[in-house]
Amino acid sequence: MLNEVLFRLEKGITVRIDIAMLGYGKVGRALARLLLRKVDVLRDQYDLTFRVTGIATRSRGCAINPAGLDLDATLAAVEAGDPLDGLHQGDPLDDTIAFIKTCPADLIMEATWLNPRTGQPATDYARAALGAGRHFVTANKGPVAFAYRELSALARQNGVGFFFESTVMDGAPVLGIGREALLATTVRRIRGVLNSTTNYVLTRLEEGASFDEAVAGAREIGVVEADPSTDLEGWDAAVKIVVLANVIMGADLRPGDVDRTGITGITSAEARAVLQAGERIKLVCEAVCTEGAVRASVRPVRLPLSDPLSQVSQTSSAVTFETDTLHHLTMIEGNTDPTTTAYGMLVDMINIARGRYT
Amino acid sequence: MLNEVLFRLEKGITVRIDIAMLGYGKVGRALARLLLRKVDVLRDQYDLTFRVTGIATRSRGCAINPAGLDLDATLAAVEAGDPLDGLHQGDPLDDTIAFIKTCPADLIMEATWLNPRTGQPATDYARAALGAGRHFVTANKGPVAFAYRELSALARQNGVGFFFESTVMDGAPVLGIGREALLATTVRRIRGVLNSTTNYVLTRLEEGASFDEAVAGAREIGVVEADPSTDLEGWDAAVKIVVLANVIMGADLRPGDVDRTGITGITSAEARAVLQAGERIKLVCEAVCTEGAVRASVRPVRLPLSDPLSQVSQTSSAVTFETDTLHHLTMIEGNTDPTTTAYGMLVDMINIARGRYT
Repeated sequence: MLNEVLFRLEKGITVRIDIAMLGYGKVGRALARLLLRKVDVLRDQYDLTFRVTGIATRSRGCAINPAGLDLDATLAAVEAGDPLDGLHQGDPLDDTIAFIKTCPADLIMEATWLNPRTGQPATDYARAALGAGRHFVTANKGPVAFAYRELSALARQNGVGFFFESTVMDGAPVLGIGREALLATTVRRIRGVLNSTTNYVLTRLEEGASFDEAVAGAREIGVVEADPSTDLEGWDAAVKIVVLANVIMGADLRPGDVDRTGITGITSAEARAVLQAGERIKLVCEAVCTEGAVRASVRPVRLPLSDPLSQVSQTSSAVTFETDTLHHLTMIEGNTDPTTTAYGMLVDMINIARGRYT
Repeated sequence: MLNEVLFRLEKGITVRIDIAMLGYGKVGRALARLLLRKVDVLRDQYDLTFRVTGIATRSRGCAINPAGLDLDATLAAVEAGDPLDGLHQGDPLDDTIAFIKTCPADLIMEATWLNPRTGQPATDYARAALGAGRHFVTANKGPVAFAYRELSALARQNGVGFFFESTVMDGAPVLGIGREALLATTVRRIRGVLNSTTNYVLTRLEEGASFDEAVAGAREIGVVEADPSTDLEGWDAAVKIVVLANVIMGADLRPGDVDRTGITGITSAEARAVLQAGERIKLVCEAVCTEGAVRASVRPVRLPLSDPLSQVSQTSSAVTFETDTLHHLTMIEGNTDPTTTAYGMLVDMINIARGRYT
């Protein structure tokens, strides 16, 4: 943006951030590629340079190099199925917590596997990183859904940022809107269609596929978790609505508090009949504030076609905020991929670098 | 938001802003009421108190009181059709520019009448305010569409904020997203349905009303300008797409540069035939970046029902961003009113108070 460029020209002080990355799966590698692609833009528009001083993976070992790893070499190694250990300098490390404490980094960017029932191990990673005075950016819903108040207090105590834009709707600035735009307002209700797998399955049921065919299709396009019940029974959606309720409505819910019904058992005949009646079935997450208390639910709902949430198909997602000052504000994200998620992490990194966390 | 509350408790330094208001029509008065309604929230969540030290109107005179005007009294006076001059302290003032220079204020909040062909008189007001070192918040598209680069440079030179969230899609954070979330990205295309009158008229044509009946209906619900050609010929939409192109895409367009076609001449029969074919006619604004150059247009377009922009009805509005990192990001605002517009100005005020303009 133009005003950012001019801002730089007046300030002219370049900052370097040393980054440690946790997780080097699809999202982690997309982040590495995005960082490489945006080197010039970060330097020219935001006075920001970076080194990646360490990467810890689940199955490919880890590497620390205080002078900065060669990101291209790390990508090549992991994609060839090789471990990263050959790039590591220093003593061997026991585990990821040891990596967090050892790796010389200002910022830890985390995109590891999540157990949606416990929020682990990412919540422990966040605790270790923030407790050690490192900024923490995560694409992982766990730490936010299970420990938002604790972790944000820890971040403040240590004077660092704790940002997590990509946890809900990938790179779409749903949480940034809460932080920067839904100010001095009472958010009365948040409604969302936030889970890709169920959205894909429901669309396929409308098209006439059987439930099993639809789930198989979701697996083919790679949106479904290893354990599909996480999506189909509404756990993923429950974790996301808890993130929104806790961060934007000031609630203190846990995923287990969500009144949750999945989509298992919905038939193609039922989905088609609803469509013929001018409506669509969507797995709707909702958080409602009534008399100061926030209640959250996830359940299949018949939505009229005039509701923007009904129009969300396949892997798109959407959320509607209702506040005392903005009656209906809807955000829709279409065509997501790992780069979209990585982009939310990049925006978090820039916003931390320019002090938006204070 | 919770994190704002906790932030306050740690900082604990209350700031007072003295505000001068230009324009006291529907939006100006909605802003006054919103400020009154949010006194406690502003103080408790943002350490922010305020006084309104002056109000300048087009037809009800003006009033300055360095100790703070009684806002309830100003609302009562104007709504009874009385001038504000009885509340004025000090020498009589010649005009609004004199008011801007005289009124003791940190921040000027402007919501005056706009000539969409010239951007005046608001552009001169912005120049005078920013030149005198006052923060400037406007709901008026004119200054941004006709003088964005000049005015933002002037604001930077004087170390003050120039914010204008309410100029496009009222209080929806379209420009806040550009400032806080579309970072280090190339915005390739912006498409919007941004004019309420044409949107309302097209919806009525689909329902079978004649063009004249539809325009009369728009006048009845109060969305149409005194001169309806401003809306129907696409001038209002052109000014809005120029604001988005200049601020978010770094363009330097003027409304006269927009390739503009209005909706005059579209018949009910045509609108209904398109609807029967599974599409809808919308007045679409578009800005496209090709090889570094941004071109903008406003024209009636047939949109498939799967396009989120096609679902915008009546007085709702919507915009879709396409970037190199977020493929499709759409924001829809429903059910707007003068308070929605005033809310965008309030958010600008808070963001200026917490230094977001630097």
